[in-house]
This record gives sequence, structure tokens and C-alpha cells, in this order.
Amino acid sequence: MDQSPPDASPHDATAQRVDLRVEGCTALVHGVGGDEGPDGIGFAEDVDVEVSGGLITRVGPARERSEHQGAPPPAEVLDGRGFLAVPGLVNCHTHAAMVLFRGAAEDVDVHTWFNERIWPMESNLTERDVELGALLACAEMLLGGTTTFADHYFHMYAVARAVEVSGARADLGWASFSSDGEAGRERGLDFALRQRGAAGGRVTTRLAPHAPYTVSEPDLAAFAVLAREHDLPVHLHAAETAEQTRASLERSGVTPVQVLDRTGLLDVPLLVAHATGVVETDLPLLARAAERGLVGVASSPRFYLKSAHGTTPIRALRGAGVPVGMATDGAASNGDLDLWASLEVTSLVQKSLGGEADPRWMTSRQVLHHATTQSAQALHLADPGSARGAVGRLAPGHRADVALLDLSAPHLQPVHDLAATLVHAARPGDVRHVVVDGRVVVRDRRLLTVDVPAVLAELRPRLAELTRRDAGRIQTYEP
Amino acid sequence: MDQSPPDASPHDATAQRVDLRVEGCTALVHGVGGDEGPDGIGFAEDVDVEVSGGLITRVGPARERSEHQGAPPPAEVLDGRGFLAVPGLVNCHTHAAMVLFRGAAEDVDVHTWFNERIWPMESNLTERDVELGALLACAEMLLGGTTTFADHYFHMYAVARAVEVSGARADLGWASFSSDGEAGRERGLDFALRQRGAAGGRVTTRLAPHAPYTVSEPDLAAFAVLAREHDLPVHLHAAETAEQTRASLERSGVTPVQVLDRTGLLDVPLLVAHATGVVETDLPLLARAAERGLVGVASSPRFYLKSAHGTTPIRALRGAGVPVGMATDGAASNGDLDLWASLEVTSLVQKSLGGEADPRWMTSRQVLHHATTQSAQALHLADPGSARGAVGRLAPGHRADVALLDLSAPHLQPVHDLAATLVHAARPGDVRHVVVDGRVVVRDRRLLTVDVPAVLAELRPRLAELTRRDAGRIQTYEP
Repeated sequence: MDQSPPDASPHDATAQRVDLRVEGCTALVHGVGGDEGPDGIGFAEDVDVEVSGGLITRVGPARERSEHQGAPPPAEVLDGRGFLAVPGLVNCHTHAAMVLFRGAAEDVDVHTWFNERIWPMESNLTERDVELGALLACAEMLLGGTTTFADHYFHMYAVARAVEVSGARADLGWASFSSDGEAGRERGLDFALRQRGAAGGRVTTRLAPHAPYTVSEPDLAAFAVLAREHDLPVHLHAAETAEQTRASLERSGVTPVQVLDRTGLLDVPLLVAHATGVVETDLPLLARAAERGLVGVASSPRFYLKSAHGTTPIRALRGAGVPVGMATDGAASNGDLDLWASLEVTSLVQKSLGGEADPRWMTSRQVLHHATTQSAQALHLADPGSARGAVGRLAPGHRADVALLDLSAPHLQPVHDLAATLVHAARPGDVRHVVVDGRVVVRDRRLLTVDVPAVLAELRPRLAELTRRDAGRIQTYEP
Repeated sequence: MDQSPPDASPHDATAQRVDLRVEGCTALVHGVGGDEGPDGIGFAEDVDVEVSGGLITRVGPARERSEHQGAPPPAEVLDGRGFLAVPGLVNCHTHAAMVLFRGAAEDVDVHTWFNERIWPMESNLTERDVELGALLACAEMLLGGTTTFADHYFHMYAVARAVEVSGARADLGWASFSSDGEAGRERGLDFALRQRGAAGGRVTTRLAPHAPYTVSEPDLAAFAVLAREHDLPVHLHAAETAEQTRASLERSGVTPVQVLDRTGLLDVPLLVAHATGVVETDLPLLARAAERGLVGVASSPRFYLKSAHGTTPIRALRGAGVPVGMATDGAASNGDLDLWASLEVTSLVQKSLGGEADPRWMTSRQVLHHATTQSAQALHLADPGSARGAVGRLAPGHRADVALLDLSAPHLQPVHDLAATLVHAARPGDVRHVVVDGRVVVRDRRLLTVDVPAVLAELRPRLAELTRRDAGRIQTYEP
């Protein structure tokens, strides 16, 4: 019997079974206009967010609820009254397992940070260490409403397992240096092909050459070829500091971005981490790639300040049409994986250091656009029609990744401007429920998926070994 | 009978009744050496913090508990195992009631901020509005472990009542401009004299001329005379921006700090808010006053970035021996009253903007010294022998203001360096219990003193009126 019942309303075609409905919340939505053009962000009051098959199917007023159109009631309901729903935050560049080194490489310049702290300590890591670190990182991120992260590291099967277990979403790439030889490139490709679409589609993958200062031009070009051949995007560090750009110019007469251009990496979907060393002449190259939907930048401003590196020139990149996503980098540099702190630091630092000092630039709405739509674009997760899927907004066709914030705490009250509240006062602890791919993974501030005390108990006896710095180093930093 | 009993131990003289004991915690302590000299901070493990009569009487190992010396068991015990005890944080410059305007003056330059937003809106405030705002601010601060704040505002009896009710500690001054005439100065003096020592000693008071650009030199000199005559310290804004210093030089040939000097304000205990416009020639003047224990500076770096004003030159001020305390300013500029965010932003911004860029300067221990001892010094609340009392460290003779942090959340783990954890990863929500003057005011993250929903319910119908900008302005900003 596939006939419609006789009293079917004209909406029946869309009356599918709802798996989850968040009822009566305020929702951060896009397409409202304002500072970021027609796509600008705004807030819709007293709406439902309906989810079916892991996708958002409707964001709209209660009177349009699906059962009013004859559909059965939803399998699960979250009472959203008094809550603000935002798209799950997207961490565009991190090394999740580096939470293992949180606080172990402090107050040093970047040369010391790499050569005397991080790269020696990383040579101690086992695959199980990376898995424990990634589990802890997923727990931290999910509890704070970060539902997607782009991870560029090693032992990546361990990270994929942590993603599977925790219920997070991630875009994973296995890092390699030219010193790893062709085997490194093969390992990265093999991982990317095998794990693409894992965890029920919550894992997407990339190729992940480390950076132009650790991967030779022929090797970068080889990655570009593989990317095209296998339809895989690429994630790498480039122009991390002005010093790197200067060193590249001295070494080869071109900037790191020009290296990306002449090795073909600007002709494939590419995520560039940091880009604080981008110069004027790089902008047309990036603009051209952005026009074709290829390039995005990830900016993690806290570590740039901490190591006195200025910041990503977001205003100039936006002027060139390049989407810039928000990121924390690893917790060994950033202290934690808190994107709410990044929202605020991005606002503050862009006004002071993001080009000409200007307190009017990077309004809270612009920061939120950067942290939602642009972050999804930078990760090539913005097209609902693609196999990778789309995140970063509460709109039909997007994956159902939602964070619900409780705004009743004194530090958030009163609210005159929800955008300012989110950027300058909200914190991870204000996140009450988190949904990823339609599944509730955090309820009433409790993570339902990872046994954090067990992870910490297994980790504790490893800490002394992990922070030894006498077992060589995985690489030497020479920008 | 004042003879000792025959079995008295030699410790009996100290065996007083303990009102409260925090048992078995880790404690942030001073005098350990390191970056900040012999007074540097460190961490003592497995200690008790004992409190009698609102004072800390002992910070030491469990085996030295007072009942082992023959004293009765404490009246109240907090289990501190697994917790980190830190001195209650000290907010050295705020306008508590400005939480009322949180998010209502965003993304504008400082001229617009004052003249088109804040000073028009402030002309709507009633005394009751200020009381409600101050209650909300006290709730926010106490929940996050901030136990003392210096407040410079108006309707200050309302603020004093909020302090009394909430259980916080505060150093209060009633702001005045020259445009208020002598009546303004008298009102401030009268408030300071009447409220000095109120709320069981938790209220200390000050004279509070607004700033050298709103108070004439003769009036500043009159405040200095009153300060000496009545043994009252002074709190004012000065050299808030480089623009103010330039304007002062153009107007009168001297910097704002030189104005303080020649009006006698550097000869009395003085708290200077902001000082981002301090120049080289100011340093010897400030150094001389600091040598006599007179001057301190309050730095609230978040708003400086937000309005693109550089930052307080803490390194140069420390070089001149000036204590620099940490502050949030009001929530209308800062977004919230979160000193944990200020800890991190201070670290980041000092490395990048605090003078010559240097990632090694302002280590986490230096930031914590700034946020504890120096904050207490800047507020003239660092001498246990004075009538004002001493805060900012866990040491005998200091007021028993303690925040206990739960470090078990994933974003704080693992811990390699407690100082880095506090500066770069801890948040207000990690504060589990708060004690002020020996009284538990926050237990298990619940504030025991203020009915926040009732405050918000009374406030809500006032919000539209409060944000009207058509009823004149309380002053015009011309630096």
C-alpha cells in the first residue's frame, strides 16, 4: 500500500519520519544579510530543528511540525525552550592527540618549541598513546560543542577509532615529511582511501604533506597528482610565520604560497593551516583558487600571539574571497581545544593585529560567519550535494550537528545581542546538549560515549615516558 | 587561671579553634622563587588550609593539623582531595553594574563607545538598576572564583549592598567628574568614610575622581589633599590610550602621569586603571611612587585589543617596580567578568604587544604572580597588618578567600605544569567551591547567596529603558 491516506495534506511528500526534534529553541541561521553579505548570520526564535537519517530536514516554526502534516511523532525530542541552537563548531586544524603534551612546551620561541620540546617528545608516541590522546581530545571538543575537527597527525587509524567511539566527526590526514620517502606518501594515500567514509560517513579523509619547509617541491607536486587522481583534498601547513616566508624567498625566490601554486596544490581542494606569513603577492594566487572553490585557510590565533607571530590576515583573505575557518591547533600550543575562546581571541586580535587597527572590523556576526560557514567551506564540507556532506549551518540537507547552549548563567545575562554574547561571553560549559549526525552524544553536560576516567587512568603511567626528550626527534625545524 | 595545663605541648599557643579546614588539597603558594624573584609562585601538594575568624591561620601538611596539637576539630571541613586551591582572584578595576550593558556597545571606536553608547545609556540608570547589576556581577564573579573587585562607579551604596548580600569583597569608590562640582567630591568622600569597613570589613573604600581628562588639575589636587587628610587611597583612570597621552601633551605639555605627579596623587596610595598610554618619561615618576608602596596599575587587556589600543606595558612597569594587577573593566567593554580569560589573554598579548615581541616573557608563573600578589598590592590589600587587610595569597594572616578548582575535566588533562593549566586552560566553570572571609559562598558550583533568577526577572522589564540613547549623556568624551 503506497497510496496516500484520503485526508493527506499537500505537504505529504515531505512528511517523512522524524528521528529527532529539538523543540522551541532559538537558532543561529544563515542567509539573513548584514556584514557578511547576503549569507550573513542571524537568529530565528521559537523554532524546531528536525532531523531524519542524520540530516537536518527542517528548521522552522512549531506550527509547521511534521506531525501536523500527518507524519508520526518523532522518535526522540529535546526540549529546546530557553536554549540557543548553533551549528556544531568546526575545528579546522588540530592535532587532537597533542592534548598529551598540554602544558609541556611553554613560553619558548617556535624553534625551541619544535626542536627541543615537541619533536623530541613526539618520538615517544605509540599508536595506543595517540588513541588515548584522541579520545581525550574528542571528549573535550564534544563537551564544548565542537562536533567536527580536521586532524593532521600520525597513527591516524587510532584517531579514526577515537572518532568512531566518541561519535565526533573528523576530516583526517596522515602527515608525512619528505624524509619519510615515498613510503610516507603511500601510507597517507592508503589511509585516506581506506578510511574515506568510515564511522558511518563521519570520517572524511585527505592527503597531508606536512609543510613546504619539510616536504620538497617534487614531493608536493606528487601529492597534487595523487589528490587529483584519487579525488582527495589536501591539508598542509604553509606560511605559518613571516619568518618562513622570508626564508622561502631567500632559499628559492618564491613565497610558500607560490610554492603551492607551482607544485599544483592550488589546483586541487586544499586546506592551508595558519597563513600568518601570507604577503600581498600571494593574494591573487589564493583568490584564483578560491574562485574555483579550491582553497581555504585555517586560523588558530591563540598560538600566534603566544609565539609572537602576528596573526592570519583574515581581512585581506576575505577581500580576496578566500574562506577562513577557525581552529585551535593542538593543545600543546593552544592550551586547550576551546573554540569559544578562539571566537573571542579572533575578534580581539583581528581588530588590533589583523591589518590596519580597526575596532569596527570583524564584528561578532563576521566572527560567527568565519566560525560556521567559512569553516565548513575551508574543510570542503559545505556542499550538501557532495559525498563528503555539509556541516556548519542549521539548514535542510546539512548533517545534523547541533550544540544547544543554556544562556541562563549570570555571565551571559542580560542578552542585548546574541552574536556578542556568543563571541565574547559564551564558554564550553554553557553547552548543554550536543548532537552529531542526529545522535545525542552530550546530554545535560554529560558525554555519553567516552569513559574519560578510564582513559586518564591508562594514560597516567605513560606521562613520564611521553615527556622524555632524549630519544631523538622526529624532524628538525628549519623554516 | 592563665596557667597552662600540665600536658600542654609547646605548640599550644597556636592551638586555636579552626572554623573551616580545606583538607588535603594542592595549593598555589608564594615565596617559592623563580621568574618573579624570591616571591615567585609554586604549588604545595597535599596540604590543609585552615581558617579562623575569617583569616587563614595555617597552610601546611595534614600531620600538623591543629587537633593534633590539642585543639578541637574544625567547625566545618571541605574535602580538598583532588582539588587545587588558589587565592580568590582579584579584579582590580571594574564597573560591576555595567553587566547591564553587556553586548550593547559592540564593534565601535572608543569615541563612539563613550559618546554614542555608554554615556547616553548610563543616564538611564536608577539606584535599583545599579543594585541589580551589581548583584548579577557578584554572582558571575563569585561563581568563577573572583572574590575581590575594585569598583569605580556611581550609586555606590547600591553596590555596597550587593557586596554585603552576595558575600563578596570589594574596594569601592564613588566616581565623580569636575562637572559634578564640589558636591561630587563631597559625595565620594562621604561614601568612602561611611562605608569604610562595611559588610564585616569586606568593604574597603577609596576616593574616585574619574580621570585627568574629565577632572581638572585643581580638582585632582583637592582629591589628593582629601586622601591624605582622611587616610583614603584613590582610584582613577589615567593614560587609558596613547591618544590620551598625546592629547594631554598637546593641551598642557605634560603626560597624564605627570598630571598625577604634579597634583600630588603620586604621593598618596593610588590605583591607576589602564595605563596603556604610559611613556618612557612616566616610568621614573611611577617607580618613585611604587618604591614608597603608593602606586599600582590595573590592566584589563581584552578591551584594549577590542578597541585597538595596544596594551599596558607590564614589562616596563615591572622593571620600574610597579605592581600591575589584573582586571576585566566593565562587562560592557569586556563581554564578561571572567578573569580566567584575562589570565590567558594577558599571557598572549604581553608576548606579542607588551613591548618587544618575546614569547619567553610573561611566563605562566609571572602571569599568576600578576594575578595574585601584584593585584593585591595594586589594591593596597597586601599588608596583613593594615586595617584594610590582605588578600591574594594563601598564607597565614591573609583573609580566607579561596577558590577550589576541580581539575578532572578533559580540557585540563593531563597536567604537566599546573601554572600553564591555570593560565591557558582553566575556566570559571572549573571552580567548584569558593570561600570568602572564611565563609563558603559557592558550593559544588552553586552560589548560596544571590537569587539570580529573581534578579533577572526584576531586570528584564527594565532592559528596553536602560538601552535608550535619547536622554542626554552623563559626559562627553574628549581625551
